[in-house]
Amino acid sequence: MFSVRFALMFCALSYFPLAARSDIARSSTQQSPKSAGKPNFIVMLMDDMGWGDLGVYGEPNKETPNLDKMASEGMLFPDFYSACPLCSPSRAALLSGRLPIRNGFYSDNAFGCNGMCIEYTHLGQQPRYHPLRHGFDEWFGSSNCHLGPFNNRDTPNVPVFRDADMVGRYYEDFPFNKQTGEANLTQIYINEATSFIEKQVATGQPFFLYWAVDATHDPVYASPDFLGTSRRGIYGDAVRELDSGVGRILQTLQKLKVDNNTFVFFSSDNGAATYNKAKGGSNGPFLCGKETTFEGGMREPAVAWWPGVVQGGQVSFQLGSLMDLFSTLLDFADIPAPSDRTIDGISLRPALLSNIVTDRSPIFLYRGDLLMAARVGQYKAHFWTWTNSWSEFHSGTDFCPGQEVKGVTTHKQTNQTASPLLFDLGCDPQEKYVIPPSSPIYQQQMPAILKAVKEHLATLKPGDPQLNWCDPAVMLMLKLKGSRDDSDKKEI
Amino acid sequence: MFSVRFALMFCALSYFPLAARSDIARSSTQQSPKSAGKPNFIVMLMDDMGWGDLGVYGEPNKETPNLDKMASEGMLFPDFYSACPLCSPSRAALLSGRLPIRNGFYSDNAFGCNGMCIEYTHLGQQPRYHPLRHGFDEWFGSSNCHLGPFNNRDTPNVPVFRDADMVGRYYEDFPFNKQTGEANLTQIYINEATSFIEKQVATGQPFFLYWAVDATHDPVYASPDFLGTSRRGIYGDAVRELDSGVGRILQTLQKLKVDNNTFVFFSSDNGAATYNKAKGGSNGPFLCGKETTFEGGMREPAVAWWPGVVQGGQVSFQLGSLMDLFSTLLDFADIPAPSDRTIDGISLRPALLSNIVTDRSPIFLYRGDLLMAARVGQYKAHFWTWTNSWSEFHSGTDFCPGQEVKGVTTHKQTNQTASPLLFDLGCDPQEKYVIPPSSPIYQQQMPAILKAVKEHLATLKPGDPQLNWCDPAVMLMLKLKGSRDDSDKKEI
Repeated sequence: MFSVRFALMFCALSYFPLAARSDIARSSTQQSPKSAGKPNFIVMLMDDMGWGDLGVYGEPNKETPNLDKMASEGMLFPDFYSACPLCSPSRAALLSGRLPIRNGFYSDNAFGCNGMCIEYTHLGQQPRYHPLRHGFDEWFGSSNCHLGPFNNRDTPNVPVFRDADMVGRYYEDFPFNKQTGEANLTQIYINEATSFIEKQVATGQPFFLYWAVDATHDPVYASPDFLGTSRRGIYGDAVRELDSGVGRILQTLQKLKVDNNTFVFFSSDNGAATYNKAKGGSNGPFLCGKETTFEGGMREPAVAWWPGVVQGGQVSFQLGSLMDLFSTLLDFADIPAPSDRTIDGISLRPALLSNIVTDRSPIFLYRGDLLMAARVGQYKAHFWTWTNSWSEFHSGTDFCPGQEVKGVTTHKQTNQTASPLLFDLGCDPQEKYVIPPSSPIYQQQMPAILKAVKEHLATLKPGDPQLNWCDPAVMLMLKLKGSRDDSDKKEI
Repeated sequence: MFSVRFALMFCALSYFPLAARSDIARSSTQQSPKSAGKPNFIVMLMDDMGWGDLGVYGEPNKETPNLDKMASEGMLFPDFYSACPLCSPSRAALLSGRLPIRNGFYSDNAFGCNGMCIEYTHLGQQPRYHPLRHGFDEWFGSSNCHLGPFNNRDTPNVPVFRDADMVGRYYEDFPFNKQTGEANLTQIYINEATSFIEKQVATGQPFFLYWAVDATHDPVYASPDFLGTSRRGIYGDAVRELDSGVGRILQTLQKLKVDNNTFVFFSSDNGAATYNKAKGGSNGPFLCGKETTFEGGMREPAVAWWPGVVQGGQVSFQLGSLMDLFSTLLDFADIPAPSDRTIDGISLRPALLSNIVTDRSPIFLYRGDLLMAARVGQYKAHFWTWTNSWSEFHSGTDFCPGQEVKGVTTHKQTNQTASPLLFDLGCDPQEKYVIPPSSPIYQQQMPAILKAVKEHLATLKPGDPQLNWCDPAVMLMLKLKGSRDDSDKKEI
């Protein structure tokens, strides 16, 4: 029997354990492929890297030559979205092809502890959430991010695994200098990736590599060869190292002559963490960042690369989502998608092979269980607006530093459903200029958007929300400034 | 005697008449070249086009395939500046290689009528300012922008010239539909450019073409083939048409096999006019726009192209200025720069031929006669901050829509010289995060910046300010909202 070998290389596995169940891996291994000679797949998923962090997307320091080259040899998607402005649900959606509200990787308290709390829970450390129990054959990495150091019994440092075995802990066995940002982790992940590829190619077996690295997640890090090399500071060092890793992986494919048989997709889990100010990434021209449903929170860098199959130097205006990777990979693997559930993604095959734009249902932008906004074509409607609470904001946490669009970047959870805010992302990708409800464009576009939203909500069967649980110890550990669950929402 | 033929194709000649005197043209024709086989030069200067309007600089709709290709075949300058955030002085500086405050193309009333008033005066229509009297051999275009219609005796529609002869007027003879934005002007300018090149190549004479087109200046326009084709609206239509013009000019050079002997440089006169809101251009991630000395006002798109001479696919981190074109063209033409005056630009030859970064004096950012800011390396110091007056702002004119950086985007002319604001444009190109004066970086960088500024000011001999004159009729014509010269400055 033909089998695909799946590997994970990353340190943020808590991002997917519950409902997601890495359905890409499960579906694939459970199905008999129709033919041999299947392509390999590599999904490169960055952590909190913004749309504007790549040279090809306009980062002024132009420090991503490998990614820019990848784009020039492949296809760039400027209109690509995550399924959630937070790491964990976004990753669950990628692996399941389903919105977090369907797959259960959400809380029904949209404005409560959903967010930073969940992102760093240690749920993934429990054996039942182990990747090897969810379709993956190999694993190197961690069930959690590299936060820390946590040096007490209640909150020990995060363990690192090779397959089923714990091989050490961050800080203790995998050094991380929080003072300087020096850590060798990205080099380890690059080496693990290239070794896995080399090993798999030697066996002649197709493979799926999920390379989910996290050097750009706070606290950002880089290895000595990259530290201090960027004009952008340590965040830029991390980007440069990841960019070099992308280059090394693609070169490995070329060296092994499997580049023509390997579909590689690069993206990020959500927008840059603008609350980290000058130490965070860039969302380019877009509004706000991570945790918000503005473009800065969910518009992602996205580059496809498959020499000889995906023609180089192309730009696709396909409205895309990380959830599409599920359907796309199954499509290329010639494996039917599961029929027992709603799949939110679409196959990007027509875009990739023929640069055809597929009409699709709206890109729905959720926070928790609340539909905040929807994008249809080049228009985007906001039904709710919110950045963060006044309390959090006044304590110094700003999701939209230097930006303020009156009535849009609200610090109160503002219900706009009576007259949703409409933006034309074509001439206004920055979401600065609300289209007046009295205008012909509004009257032409809004009914179609509302119709699509109504249909979506009418048929939506929310999954059991699995992220309501909040560990006070974790919240404390993160030293969150201000309250997220403050009184604002009661004032709507 | 060897001679270079100079031609202008544009409709905004009022931008250079006074002190600038098109010194590039004068110097060149007055000097005997040392050898035959001189290169041709083409300077393509856009009007109010922003850094963020090109796909290669991150415009999300990626609608500039010709410019993006030009960059991939040439050299991109991400750190390139105009000499003034306004059209007229910026253009005068380009042609003279000198700061406006030196060449006289400024007012000594930094915050008075300098600005929109000057930009649209009709000074250039007087015979003594005619390009043919300032070193150019041919001219097609106008001494002013395509504003209008002006249908009375005091403010007639702007005349269009071919060489010394007026060939008609905008609106009357060169139709312009302000309702739809339809105008055929860019097609005319493209055809004039390619005809000039063909004619010159046929004579075997080298040439300098200054292609200064203005479709992206409000009111923006496009011809029927481009109207309605952009996702960005009419502004995008104009960009697409100009982009296609760039492609046609480069193709003409290739077709005539003079591409290897022609240095082409593309840029814009100042940042996008953010006050035009969704109908204006984009400054990408940068702060504010035209008329300000923030990055959005003066950081320009800049692409050099010279196949076989400038290696393709390069990025130069040379800190550059439009004023550098003066020195660069003279350098490539092997003509010494004038020795009777201070030249502010440098030759970009080392950058272009060898990607070497030349250390240079700061990029000085002026408004009128006031030094607002200076960039040294990747740091920028603001000595004064100002966007526009509260009065103008409250009347609806916003230079920084959707953006507000407290204490930075001030509506009062704020003297920061006691403790200049410092930004690290490497990790903070958006000028959002002021570096505290107490920080080591500030204490390391600021003294060097202040030293350079002190030297600059000590040796500066301001030219006779020629832009103090303000025509009330023009001001009235522009229907300026709010007062520019309000009481703010008295409150400093």
